[in-house]
Amino acid sequence: MERPDTGLAFMLRYENIAWYEDGAVRILDRRCYPRTVSFVTCRSYREVAQAIADMVTQSAGPYPAAAMGMALAAYECRNRTEAEQRAYLSEAADCLTHARPTTARRMARICEQMTEAAEIAWASGTDAAEAIKARAIEANDSRYRKIARIAEHLVGRFPDHGTILTQCFAETIVGMMLKEARAKGKDLRIFCPETRPYFQGARLTATVCCEMGFDVTVITDNMPAFVMQHEHVDVFTSAADAICMDGHVVNKVGTFQIAIAANHLGVPYYVTGAPDLVHPTVDTVRIEFRDPRFVLEAMGQKTACDGVKGYYPAFDITPPELVTGVVTDRGIFDPKDLWRYAEGGMDAYEVTV
Amino acid sequence: MERPDTGLAFMLRYENIAWYEDGAVRILDRRCYPRTVSFVTCRSYREVAQAIADMVTQSAGPYPAAAMGMALAAYECRNRTEAEQRAYLSEAADCLTHARPTTARRMARICEQMTEAAEIAWASGTDAAEAIKARAIEANDSRYRKIARIAEHLVGRFPDHGTILTQCFAETIVGMMLKEARAKGKDLRIFCPETRPYFQGARLTATVCCEMGFDVTVITDNMPAFVMQHEHVDVFTSAADAICMDGHVVNKVGTFQIAIAANHLGVPYYVTGAPDLVHPTVDTVRIEFRDPRFVLEAMGQKTACDGVKGYYPAFDITPPELVTGVVTDRGIFDPKDLWRYAEGGMDAYEVTV
Repeated sequence: MERPDTGLAFMLRYENIAWYEDGAVRILDRRCYPRTVSFVTCRSYREVAQAIADMVTQSAGPYPAAAMGMALAAYECRNRTEAEQRAYLSEAADCLTHARPTTARRMARICEQMTEAAEIAWASGTDAAEAIKARAIEANDSRYRKIARIAEHLVGRFPDHGTILTQCFAETIVGMMLKEARAKGKDLRIFCPETRPYFQGARLTATVCCEMGFDVTVITDNMPAFVMQHEHVDVFTSAADAICMDGHVVNKVGTFQIAIAANHLGVPYYVTGAPDLVHPTVDTVRIEFRDPRFVLEAMGQKTACDGVKGYYPAFDITPPELVTGVVTDRGIFDPKDLWRYAEGGMDAYEVTV
Repeated sequence: MERPDTGLAFMLRYENIAWYEDGAVRILDRRCYPRTVSFVTCRSYREVAQAIADMVTQSAGPYPAAAMGMALAAYECRNRTEAEQRAYLSEAADCLTHARPTTARRMARICEQMTEAAEIAWASGTDAAEAIKARAIEANDSRYRKIARIAEHLVGRFPDHGTILTQCFAETIVGMMLKEARAKGKDLRIFCPETRPYFQGARLTATVCCEMGFDVTVITDNMPAFVMQHEHVDVFTSAADAICMDGHVVNKVGTFQIAIAANHLGVPYYVTGAPDLVHPTVDTVRIEFRDPRFVLEAMGQKTACDGVKGYYPAFDITPPELVTGVVTDRGIFDPKDLWRYAEGGMDAYEVTV
């Protein structure tokens, strides 16, 4: 599990690490972390796609997993003709892209970038799998640098002894935010809703906060309004699975109702990430519904009797009028003015979770 | 577990049954129901108070449990002098009253009523324990009749093919509501938030709905706003632990944020129950905080790592401006006009959950 020091190595242990090496991709299993630290080993790109579909990795995790999956695909077909390899990578890109519906457009773009790296390798006679792996690392490092800038802008909105309410597991940004808060001498108190049904807030966000030495409290998902009312929450913040150019925020189910409550109680809501050119408006967003059985159990135990149905929308959509600001690498934008962000030029498919 | 047929026997199996007989009070253990149907047997009033404190019974359950606990206290001291028995019942009343802080005032009144029954028994030379038991049953039956009228008014607000969102386990009223809906030929679809950390919604409300043959879906506590937005919810309804005379509603934590979301999305919120003279304003309400460890586990399994704190307010308070109507046995009232209810005369301490 060695990898080049990016200067941001402290982040790695909090990441949904996906790593290609020796004909396999290993992915940290976030479903049981931190109770158990184990890895899913994928011996083919199809197994990588299956792991992504099975929620082995979450948040921004599927993107590097798919990129490393492309490296594995290149390894799988390394002894075939170039035409066959091209066809094989195309199949792999298609399979990985559709592992989860909500992220399909961005996944497609990442697989495209990896294919470009392979084309260059084929043209220059170098190893395509290694070329793709290098491109995947490069993409991730560029993401880290961008997120560090986002964290800087976000933490600028926190008081010195602020209380922050989070939602779900915001991947790299949570760690970056805390690192920046520490650097600025800000002593934060953090409330994390547990984020049913997967408990990402309790298992992942709270663990990061705790390991980085902050005062962190887990609440159940029915408590955010109470906490905002009674515990002087200064800022509600979340990352996003997508920020549409019209200011609609797609994020873990629950974000919408916390944003409504925050608005009602006068607590500002800052969402982090770059806006998405792939979603000019909210109309292109398709909400992913997952297996309803997960809602009917907790930590693997059934909660309801037979005959009761479940219902599991993975995300919800928060409209721009409930968003105080979109915190990007280029500063904080009004959610109704995101096209101004694009004026600086942008890659439509970058991941900034 | 036999008891006189009240004409509402169908309700009994959904009740937090507490039953005094042969020197013991047996209470259905709601913490593991419906997975396991088991009873906690209390051999002294102190054990009854402990069971109430330990959440063996919930919602309206503590009231009959305390009443039956008083019968047990009378049994415990049956061979002492009348003065000693009086002192013993007074101690028992005090102990049961303070088993849980939020309900103390009402519990005190119930214990008072039971003591009155004992006084009559002592004066007439009959068995005090049996007299208290009879009074406890009578109080419960009167409650049933009242709730049947509440259900009638509530169901009047449901469309024929309505979709209803509930919150927590509203005890008798859920069963009465469904019985009334059936009688009126209304075919309801019901969404129940699971109600962490105890899962009353998933375990109890959903079970009642399912056993009574309705279409019922459990959601996690972060989904109510999404469901109201996407599933055409006609009415959000909950019972209340207390309805203050100034229209503030005290109920299971989470009610407040669903009410905020309902208000934002134009879904009416009807709360059921009689207003409480013991709370002329919200200022007399004390929110109960429970052991924070319960928030850090689910179905008995830890969700967060060591070092992470929990936070567990049992209730929250919804202000009158978020309440569409208070559904009482005397009709539906504007939450800002509850003193009009009292004009018909009322017992300050009746329980109508």
